Amino acid sequence: MLAIEKYQQEFVAYLQDYATVKEPKGLYQPIQYILNLGGKRLRPVLTLLTAEIFNGHYKEALNAALSVEVFHNFSLVHDDIMDDAPLRRGHQTVHEKWNVNTGILSGDAMLIMAYQLFENYHADTFQALAKLFSKTALEVCEGQQYDVDFETRSDVAINEYLKMIEYKTAVLVGAAMKMGAIVANASVEDQDTIYEFGKNLGIAFQLQDDYLDAFGDPKTFGKQVGGDIIENKKTYLYIKALEFSESETKLKLANLFSTTLDSNEAKIETVKAIFVDSGAAEASKKAIQDYTDKAFNVLETLNISADKKLVLKTFGTNLMNRTV
Amino acid sequence: MLAIEKYQQEFVAYLQDYATVKEPKGLYQPIQYILNLGGKRLRPVLTLLTAEIFNGHYKEALNAALSVEVFHNFSLVHDDIMDDAPLRRGHQTVHEKWNVNTGILSGDAMLIMAYQLFENYHADTFQALAKLFSKTALEVCEGQQYDVDFETRSDVAINEYLKMIEYKTAVLVGAAMKMGAIVANASVEDQDTIYEFGKNLGIAFQLQDDYLDAFGDPKTFGKQVGGDIIENKKTYLYIKALEFSESETKLKLANLFSTTLDSNEAKIETVKAIFVDSGAAEASKKAIQDYTDKAFNVLETLNISADKKLVLKTFGTNLMNRTV
Repeated sequence: MLAIEKYQQEFVAYLQDYATVKEPKGLYQPIQYILNLGGKRLRPVLTLLTAEIFNGHYKEALNAALSVEVFHNFSLVHDDIMDDAPLRRGHQTVHEKWNVNTGILSGDAMLIMAYQLFENYHADTFQALAKLFSKTALEVCEGQQYDVDFETRSDVAINEYLKMIEYKTAVLVGAAMKMGAIVANASVEDQDTIYEFGKNLGIAFQLQDDYLDAFGDPKTFGKQVGGDIIENKKTYLYIKALEFSESETKLKLANLFSTTLDSNEAKIETVKAIFVDSGAAEASKKAIQDYTDKAFNVLETLNISADKKLVLKTFGTNLMNRTV
Repeated sequence: MLAIEKYQQEFVAYLQDYATVKEPKGLYQPIQYILNLGGKRLRPVLTLLTAEIFNGHYKEALNAALSVEVFHNFSLVHDDIMDDAPLRRGHQTVHEKWNVNTGILSGDAMLIMAYQLFENYHADTFQALAKLFSKTALEVCEGQQYDVDFETRSDVAINEYLKMIEYKTAVLVGAAMKMGAIVANASVEDQDTIYEFGKNLGIAFQLQDDYLDAFGDPKTFGKQVGGDIIENKKTYLYIKALEFSESETKLKLANLFSTTLDSNEAKIETVKAIFVDSGAAEASKKAIQDYTDKAFNVLETLNISADKKLVLKTFGTNLMNRTV
């Protein structure tokens, strides 16, 4: 097995060979652009790593890994249109650099190209990968729809929120790892276990992302701290704060989350104080720990060596400490 | 084998069972809506018919047929956003009835659902269907991109135009038929032949659609006669008229196609006269006949009975006479 950085390098080299511009350029140039914007390539690296955990060779998993990354970028292109986002990883989004129609059509092509990457596998593996991919991709769409629905709802329950982030974010992490297991011909039991590991780690990661959005260090977080509060996002912190607060604070918080202000500093401070005082911040930290523990406990049941379990656990620990 | 109308009925019944609304409703209601807007269901009927031509049972082909129809409707939803079209089959388009974001996301889900419908087939058939589907779907995206590119180009050659309509429209007709052949376990040779039949018939059909847009009977054509002329669409008629005309007429035509007018009656009449006088109308009729003949000639090489060839030929003849 290689170091994580090595898998990243190998993957990026493979991606760059793949993302060349064909005709019509208006369709394929935006695809090359978004695929080369960078990012940590976490999901495809997990596919490669998992293939080797189950005694496959990472090279056999490169096309599956690429499919995961192409799909992920498809969802970014279409989500950025829906969110009207001008920037992605510090660069113009596709619909900003070109236009909305280009974003729609190039995104569609990427979704199809993600399926085509499975064609390099034999029929049984192809079908297993494509079935998992379709189930996952549809859940990602459903998660996005729940996210949109929640914007106009004031009664989002914590279980609904957890389902939304599971679908929108976590299932793709689980699927990325399961694809590595499928390519390596792991048992169906191990395939399902590694999926659960990835999914729970993905939920923990997203909950931590929400937490850091409010309480992270502006120097290291990468995004604007307080961004979710400015946009009135109903995160785990918000839903729990509403649940834990008395009616007066509940009303204050709900009012703060129904306004758009010119200056947000006071709003952010007030909301953060409510998150802390209500116990929502503590509850959020506990949920992150619970999902991380759940992921690590699942690992114990895998039919792999203790060394390999340690590799996955170290990856998970580093991810939650944001060093990978 | 059944009558065409019977395949239509069986297909629509199957579609209605399929298009039920699941959660989240915001995602699946628009899908049910567009799938139930009607239409002639030509492509899926061709899948069912072709399965029986090759001694399969149409019921085995229902999921493949449904996949073709779901994909076709996905492309309509996204194209209608790109064209800013308010109406589809006399009803509001999805992005008009809901909004653009809903159109994008529900369309994405339909593309994935189209692949899922192949999961009902065994691994080898699954892979054959999914490979053909991906190739076709990507060509449809490329065709749409060429169509967009042509709007801002003044030097579109006739071969480029033919490739555009082949990709945007005709390959899906060929693929719909080939899918029926795949499900029925026809030989690869017969699969490829029936694809060529469908593709050439599809090109003939689209060329005829362009022709009727200018010269069709307003009572029977269904769309506004002269619509392409109003929208300055560079069709076969326009490109051939430019090719056949002297420089003065050429300039006049190019100028007419660079304006947007309040009243279009005079423009339509002038352009139609140029189409006729230049010989473009005649050339267009000849091309329609040539592609129809090409489709029918291909039929002769199929390893099926004369009766079955007649069924396909009759279908093609009726299609070109617009009675189906």
